[in-house]
Amino acid sequence: MLGEICDIEMEGHLIDSLMLTRVLDKIMDMGGEFEIKIFRIGQKKNDSSYARIAVMGKDAANLERILLELHSLGARSVEVEDARIETCPGDMVVPKGFYSTTNHPTLIRTEGAWMKVENSRMDCLITVKDGKARSTPINHIHRGDRVVVGTSGVKVMPPERPREKSFFGFMNNEVSSERPSREIIGQLAGEIIGTRSKGGKIAAICGPAIIHTGAAPSLAWLIREGYVNVLLAGNAVAVHDIERQLFDTSLGMDLHGCATSGGHRNHLYAISEVMESGSIEGAIREGKLKGGIMYECITRGVPFVLAGSIRDDGPLPEVITDTVKAKDAMYEALDGVEMALMMSTMLHSIAAGNMLPSYIKTICIDINPSTLTKLMDRGSAQAIGLVTDVGTLLPQLVEEIQDRRSQILNR
Amino acid sequence: MLGEICDIEMEGHLIDSLMLTRVLDKIMDMGGEFEIKIFRIGQKKNDSSYARIAVMGKDAANLERILLELHSLGARSVEVEDARIETCPGDMVVPKGFYSTTNHPTLIRTEGAWMKVENSRMDCLITVKDGKARSTPINHIHRGDRVVVGTSGVKVMPPERPREKSFFGFMNNEVSSERPSREIIGQLAGEIIGTRSKGGKIAAICGPAIIHTGAAPSLAWLIREGYVNVLLAGNAVAVHDIERQLFDTSLGMDLHGCATSGGHRNHLYAISEVMESGSIEGAIREGKLKGGIMYECITRGVPFVLAGSIRDDGPLPEVITDTVKAKDAMYEALDGVEMALMMSTMLHSIAAGNMLPSYIKTICIDINPSTLTKLMDRGSAQAIGLVTDVGTLLPQLVEEIQDRRSQILNR
Amino acid sequence: MLGEICDIEMEGHLIDSLMLTRVLDKIMDMGGEFEIKIFRIGQKKNDSSYARIAVMGKDAANLERILLELHSLGARSVEVEDARIETCPGDMVVPKGFYSTTNHPTLIRTEGAWMKVENSRMDCLITVKDGKARSTPINHIHRGDRVVVGTSGVKVMPPERPREKSFFGFMNNEVSSERPSREIIGQLAGEIIGTRSKGGKIAAICGPAIIHTGAAPSLAWLIREGYVNVLLAGNAVAVHDIERQLFDTSLGMDLHGCATSGGHRNHLYAISEVMESGSIEGAIREGKLKGGIMYECITRGVPFVLAGSIRDDGPLPEVITDTVKAKDAMYEALDGVEMALMMSTMLHSIAAGNMLPSYIKTICIDINPSTLTKLMDRGSAQAIGLVTDVGTLLPQLVEEIQDRRSQILNR
Amino acid sequence: MLGEICDIEMEGHLIDSLMLTRVLDKIMDMGGEFEIKIFRIGQKKNDSSYARIAVMGKDAANLERILLELHSLGARSVEVEDARIETCPGDMVVPKGFYSTTNHPTLIRTEGAWMKVENSRMDCLITVKDGKARSTPINHIHRGDRVVVGTSGVKVMPPERPREKSFFGFMNNEVSSERPSREIIGQLAGEIIGTRSKGGKIAAICGPAIIHTGAAPSLAWLIREGYVNVLLAGNAVAVHDIERQLFDTSLGMDLHGCATSGGHRNHLYAISEVMESGSIEGAIREGKLKGGIMYECITRGVPFVLAGSIRDDGPLPEVITDTVKAKDAMYEALDGVEMALMMSTMLHSIAAGNMLPSYIKTICIDINPSTLTKLMDRGSAQAIGLVTDVGTLLPQLVEEIQDRRSQILNR
Repeated sequence: MLGEICDIEMEGHLIDSLMLTRVLDKIMDMGGEFEIKIFRIGQKKNDSSYARIAVMGKDAANLERILLELHSLGARSVEVEDARIETCPGDMVVPKGFYSTTNHPTLIRTEGAWMKVENSRMDCLITVKDGKARSTPINHIHRGDRVVVGTSGVKVMPPERPREKSFFGFMNNEVSSERPSREIIGQLAGEIIGTRSKGGKIAAICGPAIIHTGAAPSLAWLIREGYVNVLLAGNAVAVHDIERQLFDTSLGMDLHGCATSGGHRNHLYAISEVMESGSIEGAIREGKLKGGIMYECITRGVPFVLAGSIRDDGPLPEVITDTVKAKDAMYEALDGVEMALMMSTMLHSIAAGNMLPSYIKTICIDINPSTLTKLMDRGSAQAIGLVTDVGTLLPQLVEEIQDRRSQILNR
Repeated sequence: MLGEICDIEMEGHLIDSLMLTRVLDKIMDMGGEFEIKIFRIGQKKNDSSYARIAVMGKDAANLERILLELHSLGARSVEVEDARIETCPGDMVVPKGFYSTTNHPTLIRTEGAWMKVENSRMDCLITVKDGKARSTPINHIHRGDRVVVGTSGVKVMPPERPREKSFFGFMNNEVSSERPSREIIGQLAGEIIGTRSKGGKIAAICGPAIIHTGAAPSLAWLIREGYVNVLLAGNAVAVHDIERQLFDTSLGMDLHGCATSGGHRNHLYAISEVMESGSIEGAIREGKLKGGIMYECITRGVPFVLAGSIRDDGPLPEVITDTVKAKDAMYEALDGVEMALMMSTMLHSIAAGNMLPSYIKTICIDINPSTLTKLMDRGSAQAIGLVTDVGTLLPQLVEEIQDRRSQILNR
Repeated sequence: MLGEICDIEMEGHLIDSLMLTRVLDKIMDMGGEFEIKIFRIGQKKNDSSYARIAVMGKDAANLERILLELHSLGARSVEVEDARIETCPGDMVVPKGFYSTTNHPTLIRTEGAWMKVENSRMDCLITVKDGKARSTPINHIHRGDRVVVGTSGVKVMPPERPREKSFFGFMNNEVSSERPSREIIGQLAGEIIGTRSKGGKIAAICGPAIIHTGAAPSLAWLIREGYVNVLLAGNAVAVHDIERQLFDTSLGMDLHGCATSGGHRNHLYAISEVMESGSIEGAIREGKLKGGIMYECITRGVPFVLAGSIRDDGPLPEVITDTVKAKDAMYEALDGVEMALMMSTMLHSIAAGNMLPSYIKTICIDINPSTLTKLMDRGSAQAIGLVTDVGTLLPQLVEEIQDRRSQILNR
Repeated sequence: MLGEICDIEMEGHLIDSLMLTRVLDKIMDMGGEFEIKIFRIGQKKNDSSYARIAVMGKDAANLERILLELHSLGARSVEVEDARIETCPGDMVVPKGFYSTTNHPTLIRTEGAWMKVENSRMDCLITVKDGKARSTPINHIHRGDRVVVGTSGVKVMPPERPREKSFFGFMNNEVSSERPSREIIGQLAGEIIGTRSKGGKIAAICGPAIIHTGAAPSLAWLIREGYVNVLLAGNAVAVHDIERQLFDTSLGMDLHGCATSGGHRNHLYAISEVMESGSIEGAIREGKLKGGIMYECITRGVPFVLAGSIRDDGPLPEVITDTVKAKDAMYEALDGVEMALMMSTMLHSIAAGNMLPSYIKTICIDINPSTLTKLMDRGSAQAIGLVTDVGTLLPQLVEEIQDRRSQILNR
């Protein structure tokens, strides 16, 4: 990378996955020039392409900045070197020029061989230890950790456009409320059934509007029937769910939408009841809690993480109040997930989105389009946004899954 | 209204219908003072109250401005005089100080007797002719028309809070998406069935998102089964509906949400097909058009108004392209309506809202809360806003009506 | 286009302008296959590329549909034939398979030579008459008109990515409110000054929120100083503007945001005052109206179109109440415009957007992101969306223009 | 409260502060009946009213629920008894029927005398200890704590309508974007200057959009000049602020709105730089950090709380990662605050809103109206919502304060 010119190369479905477009755009946006030296186009649908491009910067610093950007788009230096590795001088203190990860699958080259980075998590450093490479968030960086610096010897593989038309392909991230709702519910039901029939794990990431809008029984059904295998939520979801089970209210609003007696008191009393039993699990054991989202999770052994926030009352004993620990627990719970349903929560959706590799099927359902826009702005570009009402959508999704399931059984 | 002090009086459910609160607030907001001279409170739920209040302004002009405002809140001068009537000097030219109507029932006093203004339409003048009074919009004012000036001899009756809890009472205009969706759908279904069983007319005011989101068959069902008795919409609704019938697309997007071949071409071709038949009705007669929203309206004799806008392609022959004439047609069509369902249209909702008396049950369904906020800002304070997805709501509403209907039949 | 295979070709900045990506995506989305036969890539920034691709459909109908779609993306059949032309059988009745236009520059081939279609307007037919081709909306199609059918002999030129970084390039249509506001105002000011200094015409397309939010004096300044050369709006903008000039209120709300006496009465009285003078121009001549948006337009000779809508009171004499005629007037007014500022109006923005060629610099400013999403959904893909408050933005834009102008003068 | 009838009484500005309306509404909504036994209306603006009402429930349980609701509206039993006090059986375990607080000033009666509850915090219990009463959140309830049960002997004083027109009076909680922006900025500037000139403390509660939209220098100015006396925010605000100071980027987007080189790397490197110095304060001491929001807070001694969330990178050493501790720190920091400016953060706004008494002047600025709606839904009914762009608003607010200040100085 000496001087002001450098050759990069890239391969894959360069055209239709936008990789080449993004690389050329970025070079021009950043004031650079390019010359395409070799371009072998994949002639048919499944063929991959190859490009070798000379990139010129205005000066060495400009070129370096350009290459840094191109790298995260999947381009890499032609001169293959080993990844450069440096030692961190302190806890959470990182060497200048450290490599910051994307959420795409990544390889690094050490001693001439390519090694897969074990996990794909954005905005991390790559630590190398005992012959293994991992994406490690900055708060887990300790003094003496060895981390990748620069981009040489690092290869990123952005997702490619699916060769076949699919729910996740065609929606193409657009955030528009003017979509045929029923049809989309059908496709979503199909994806959920398909993922589960192959044993794929599905995570639900939920906000309290699910309970306020009356969709809690639908979510409870999805958990009970095995269509949700991990639950990420906050204290509010759990308390509202339990309040609804115990008192038929949610934040003191009854299920007819009327503010009812006691107001917030039922909310607090739900917490008190759980505290008396020691935990949500205790409340189930004692027969206090007989249904609902948390009940289904606990009795079916579906793992859940309740992460604390500064809005919480209580919180419940199962809530992880330390946000750093909660993040770690969320990351662990999301391990192996193949599909993520984000529903009516900006905070948890973005937090979970930051942890999910780019190849995970991600659907974000919210009545507020800005939640979806922000999720994508924050890097979860693979997410499909549905602008709709979770309170009307979830019951229809459950019906659709039931219909399809009984059709399969009746065949 | 001599000097700087004036006595007003008002009666009704002054407390719980907010009338008295609004009157005192307004006096203070506008810099006036007040002294409550008589206040007889209704002791029980169905009793009405009476108040007589001396209002003081900073000067005569201030007092006059205050009284003008109080008037539309239902207060009136104690000294009962006949309404003052002046002659309009030109077409659409009105005398200074003319009385501008609310959407509440109104009486005027002539020759010592109170006479009901025949219609309640906001932002109109009251014209008096042949012993009858009418709310007349400014564009129908002609030279020589006699109109009410000032507020003396005019009595306004704002809606009172319903004595019993009801769907239209409790929702209380709040615009929030966090409501129990299914429950609200049930209540709405109940209101629709109830209104129809008593022979009340229901108007649907619709935007094209009904078709884009796949809810057209649900609306067509409501028309066919007699739950929608008037349809107000624009050219787009009709063309999309017909396009969907003829080509299974809506604005070139197929019903799976995929952009399909031909793009906007189907939209234009739908117009061409109708033009060839001379009209939508012609297309039905020739067997081209066999279902959908417009088909149901025409074959069932349900009156409709398609009002033109500058966004229209075509438009279709049934569309009234002159907006002044379209407004008149809408007003006529809304005559006698008891319930108005506004769905996914800001333009038509606000236009229709301007024409509806304040005692009409008005529900506005939109995924965008700002449509609801604007509707209420523009004077339709009686409207109940539901922030939800019409594409998921309408099919559930139809199911709910079907369920309730069959329950009634099975009893 | 015989059988199930057809060769297409395209040239230009195929990679970075996304043309090739879109073509391959569309083929795959619609179930087709492809083989890239020739691909000559432009090696440097300003070089253009060339591609020749064999497209295979599942059957002849599928292939035809695919080719239709590819065509609007800028691809065309290799076998160059003349455009096929057919005669329209009736007014607004068009031949099956008619060619529906994009908003991109377009050529058609007649008698072996390529001829530019004179205007670029979306969702029109191409009519050929007296050796000239025009994009003609369906409502101007008359019996006997000769229109292009199919895609052979039609060439579309989608906009290419600007080679240099620019305001209009980098924003890239994203609709996000999290942008550095001041910086963007500076860039917008630069674009406006730049466009004007080269004699380019700027259109302002406005909604009434400009007046409600107190930005009317800023818009009036822009008109007075020559930065707005065409005004498109509705009756409401004109009435509010005049009401504000005559009574210092807007819809009865004074400029401190307080509802004031008279409510809607001032609005109606403003109309009456204009009617008395015969027209807005008359009211200026008589000295009634001494400033504001309409005053500046009329006294500076800035052309304007006030299009009617069903929400209008009055309307004012200058308003074109027939929507079909209003559309024609808008189209004429937009002729030659190089930049369009759309502010706080969904209806007029989409209507104007439908008329603007894709190479016109289009900025849409609205506090509601859904206005921007819908504008782009409706085909104005070139529009840049700014999610911000026009009431705080416009005054700052004016200040910024003033600052830059005085800097230039002081040099 | 035995039987089905109970007399309540209330006093104050019952009419214009809506207290009486709300009480009667609630009785009717909940199925009760009422008889107004005594009503003495305040005759003039500053007189207070008194009402004594017999409330009837359908049964004893219904009556009790009604009385519970009426209580939080400011009504109380006529039979004055001491507050009932019970002992909590466990940590966070509360006696059935505990009294749940509002955010209004509250008195309790013990041994025949009324005692002020020391703080007004919603959704708490009232604990009584050492002759003092406090609103205590459930997580601070310990076994053996003595808490108020039921509503007897508890008096709530909801805020009364200000007698004079004021910024905080007239806005009336409406959430509408169509307000005269400049005028409102002027009024807000006036309130800020007025509050500060009387020594009142102002809190700023901030989200990261302040930095993304380029308003950080404006907020830094407000802190430096003493117009912000407490800062509540999250890790993101601090990191973005520091990133901006060190690298002129915010989340890797430069201040021209362009994504720049390094992307998220600058964000992480900002954290690393701070970690190396041990803390933000350390980074200032070492001369790394020379300006910005955090710099002003620390160098001016303005207290701040950075609360952790699961979205955080890092977080910085000053961040309180435990959400329960963070809430306590926020509550302490808000002590004595007279005005709260909430800007572009739903999470922190609602969390802070839960802690603020109802008499604190609360302004919530957000481009997304749903943030404001939710804040009010969650109980902060006193908040005034401004739907506008903080990036254009804050610079104008600073200019306005500067102008007014220099006007005062020049007098």
